[in-house]
Amino acid sequence: MSRERFEEKETARLEAFSDGVFAIAITLLVLELGDPSLRGGVSLSQGLLDEWPSFFALVTSFITILIMWMNHHNMFNYIRRTDRRLMLLNGLLLLFVTLTPFTTSLVANHITLADASANVAAAVYAGTFFLLAIVWNGLWWYCSSGHRLLGKDVTEEQARTITRQYFAAPLSYGAALVIAPFSGLASVVVILAVAGFFAITATIGK
Amino acid sequence: MSRERFEEKETARLEAFSDGVFAIAITLLVLELGDPSLRGGVSLSQGLLDEWPSFFALVTSFITILIMWMNHHNMFNYIRRTDRRLMLLNGLLLLFVTLTPFTTSLVANHITLADASANVAAAVYAGTFFLLAIVWNGLWWYCSSGHRLLGKDVTEEQARTITRQYFAAPLSYGAALVIAPFSGLASVVVILAVAGFFAITATIGK
Amino acid sequence: MSRERFEEKETARLEAFSDGVFAIAITLLVLELGDPSLRGGVSLSQGLLDEWPSFFALVTSFITILIMWMNHHNMFNYIRRTDRRLMLLNGLLLLFVTLTPFTTSLVANHITLADASANVAAAVYAGTFFLLAIVWNGLWWYCSSGHRLLGKDVTEEQARTITRQYFAAPLSYGAALVIAPFSGLASVVVILAVAGFFAITATIGK
Amino acid sequence: MSRERFEEKETARLEAFSDGVFAIAITLLVLELGDPSLRGGVSLSQGLLDEWPSFFALVTSFITILIMWMNHHNMFNYIRRTDRRLMLLNGLLLLFVTLTPFTTSLVANHITLADASANVAAAVYAGTFFLLAIVWNGLWWYCSSGHRLLGKDVTEEQARTITRQYFAAPLSYGAALVIAPFSGLASVVVILAVAGFFAITATIGK
Repeated sequence: MSRERFEEKETARLEAFSDGVFAIAITLLVLELGDPSLRGGVSLSQGLLDEWPSFFALVTSFITILIMWMNHHNMFNYIRRTDRRLMLLNGLLLLFVTLTPFTTSLVANHITLADASANVAAAVYAGTFFLLAIVWNGLWWYCSSGHRLLGKDVTEEQARTITRQYFAAPLSYGAALVIAPFSGLASVVVILAVAGFFAITATIGK
Repeated sequence: MSRERFEEKETARLEAFSDGVFAIAITLLVLELGDPSLRGGVSLSQGLLDEWPSFFALVTSFITILIMWMNHHNMFNYIRRTDRRLMLLNGLLLLFVTLTPFTTSLVANHITLADASANVAAAVYAGTFFLLAIVWNGLWWYCSSGHRLLGKDVTEEQARTITRQYFAAPLSYGAALVIAPFSGLASVVVILAVAGFFAITATIGK
Repeated sequence: MSRERFEEKETARLEAFSDGVFAIAITLLVLELGDPSLRGGVSLSQGLLDEWPSFFALVTSFITILIMWMNHHNMFNYIRRTDRRLMLLNGLLLLFVTLTPFTTSLVANHITLADASANVAAAVYAGTFFLLAIVWNGLWWYCSSGHRLLGKDVTEEQARTITRQYFAAPLSYGAALVIAPFSGLASVVVILAVAGFFAITATIGK
Repeated sequence: MSRERFEEKETARLEAFSDGVFAIAITLLVLELGDPSLRGGVSLSQGLLDEWPSFFALVTSFITILIMWMNHHNMFNYIRRTDRRLMLLNGLLLLFVTLTPFTTSLVANHITLADASANVAAAVYAGTFFLLAIVWNGLWWYCSSGHRLLGKDVTEEQARTITRQYFAAPLSYGAALVIAPFSGLASVVVILAVAGFFAITATIGK
C-alpha cells in the first residue's frame, strides 16, 4: 500500500468515526422528548404545545450539529493526513459534540422558567458550543500552520480564507455566552440564528 | 483525485451519515418497549398482551423507516453529486426521521385510550411523516430539476418516473393526517398499509 | 460504473446498514444495567451480586448477537447482489435483532423470580431468536435457490453446506422455546450454550 | 476478487464494526448526565457544580475510550487478516467497551460517598478496564505470535515493540484495581492519569 493510499485510509477512518459520533449525538437528541401527558393533569395536545421549549431546543441543537457536521466534512476535504495529535484534538471536539443532548435537555427544561436557571442553562449550552468552537479553531490551526496536514494542492490563500471563516464561530458563541446571564432565551435565539445564518449563506453560496 | 472521484466520495459520505441516522433511529425504537410488569398489578404475559399497541406502533415505524431507507438508498443511485443545499435538505429529512421514536411512543401510549389523545397522537405521527414526505419531494425536485445533481446517464424519462412515484408519499401520509382527527387507529393502520403496500410492490416489482 | 461494481456497492451498503444496526443493538444492551443501590436498602457490592441475572442475560445476548453478526458477515461473502426482496428480508431479520435489548431486559428482570414470569420471559426471549432464525433461513433460501443472488464462483456444494449449517439455528432456538414453559432458566442456558458452541467450533474450525 | 483484496475487505469490516461500537459507547456516556434540578431542593447552578463527579467520570471514560479507539485503530495497521478467533477476541474486547457507560455511572453515583460503595464502584470500573487490557494483550498475542495475522511488511522487531508497549495497560489498570479498596477516588485518578499519559506521549511522540 503506497504512503498516500495509507494516509487516505487513515483519514477516512477518522472521518467515519467522527461521522458516527455526529450521527449518534444528533439522533440521541430525540430522547429528550417525552410524552407530556405522562406527567398527568394535562391533555396530550396541550402538553405538546407546552413542550415547545423542548422542540425549540431540539431544532436549535439539530441544525447546529448538522452545520458542524457539514463543516467538519468540508474541513476534511483540505486535511489529507492525520497524526495522533489531530486524533486527540478531534476527540476533544467530539467530546463537546456528545455533550449536546445533555445541554439541550437543560435548555428545554429551564428556558421558560422565571428563575435564574433559564440563564444558567443557556450559559452552559452556549459555553459548551463556545469551547467546541475554540477547539475547532485550534484543530484547524494545528493542521494548517506550516501546511502540516493539508493536501499538497491546497493553496495558502485557501487555508487563510478558511482560518478567517472559522473565527466567526467562537465570536458568535462567545456573544451568546455573554448574553446568557441577562437573557437565556435571547442567548439560545442567537445560537439558532447562527445556525440559520450558516444554513442560509450555504444556500446562497453555492 | 479526479473531480468525479471526489464527487463520488462526497456523495458516499452523505449516504453513510444518512445510513447511520436511519440505523440509529430504527434501533432506538426498541427503547419505547418496557417491561409491563414493572408497573405492577399485572402478570408478565398479560402485560405483554396489553402492550400490543407498543408492538403495533414499533412494527409500523420500523417498516416505514426501513422502506424510507431503501428508497433513500435508491434515490442516491441517481444523485451523484452533492452541494450544501442538498446536505441541508437531507438534514431536514433526517430531522423528521429522528423524531420517529418519539412520535411512535406517543402512538403506543395513546392509541387505545378512549379520550381525544389517541387522535392527537396519530395526527402528530402522520403529520411528521407528511412533512418528511414533503421535504423528500422537495429534495428530489431540487436534485432533479434541470438535472442539477443527477448522474449523466440518468435519462429525463427515468427522473420523471421517480418524480411521479414520490408523489404517492405525501398523498398517503396526507390522507392519514386527514383521517387522524376522526380515528387515530385508522390513521396508523393507513400508515402501516402504506409501508406494507410499498413492501409488497417491491416484492412483486423485482 | 460497471454492473458488477454497482452491485458490489449496493451490497456493501446493505452490509454497512446491517452492521450499524448490529453495533447499536449490541451496545444498547448496556442500558439494561442499572445502579442497584438506587433502589435502596442494599449495599452496592451486594446489589451488583444480586444483579447477576442482568449480567447473565447481557452476556448471553451479547455473544448471540456477536455470533449472528459474524455469520451475517460470512453469509454476505457468498451473496454478491441485492434486490428489494433481500432488503426486506434483511430488514425483517434486523427487526428481531433490534428487539434483543428489550427481550434481554425481560429475562434479566424475571429469570430468578419464582412465579410464571421467568418462563414467560424466557419464552419471549427464545421465541424472538427462533423467529429470527426462521427469517435467516428464509433469507438464505431466497438468495441461494437457483443461485439467485450468489456470486458466480460459489459452488452448489458450498451453498448446500451452508443451507445445512443454518438449519441448526431454528432447531436450537426451537428447543429453547419448547423448554421455556418448564424452566425459563434452562431455556436461557440453552441459548447461551448455543452461542458458546458456535464460538468454540469457530475457534476449532479455523 | 484477489485473496489479498478479500482479506483487506474482511479486516475493514471488522474495523468498521468496532468503530461503530466505540462511537456508540463513547456517545452513550452522555446519558449518564442528568438535569440535577429535577431531583429538587437545589438550584441548577449549584446542582451542576455538585454533579462534578459525573463530569469527572465522563471525561475519564471518554478519554480512555478515545485512546483505546486510537490504539485499536493503530493495531489494525499491523493486523491485515482476520479469522473467526480474532473476531471473537475482538468481540470480547468490545463487550468490555460497551460496559463502560454502566461502570462510569457507578463511579459518578458513588465516588464522593463516604461509605464503602465509592471503593466498590472504582473497583468495578478499574476491574472492567483491567479485563479489557488482558483481552487486548491476548488478542495481540494471538495475532502476532508466529506472525499469524500480521502484514508481511511488519517486522519482528516492530511486533515485539508493540507487545512491550501493550503490557503497560494491564499493569496500569491492575494498579488502579489494587488501589480501589483503599481509595476509590485515587483509583479513578490513576485511570484518568493513564489516559492523560497516553495522550501526552502521543502528542510528544509524533
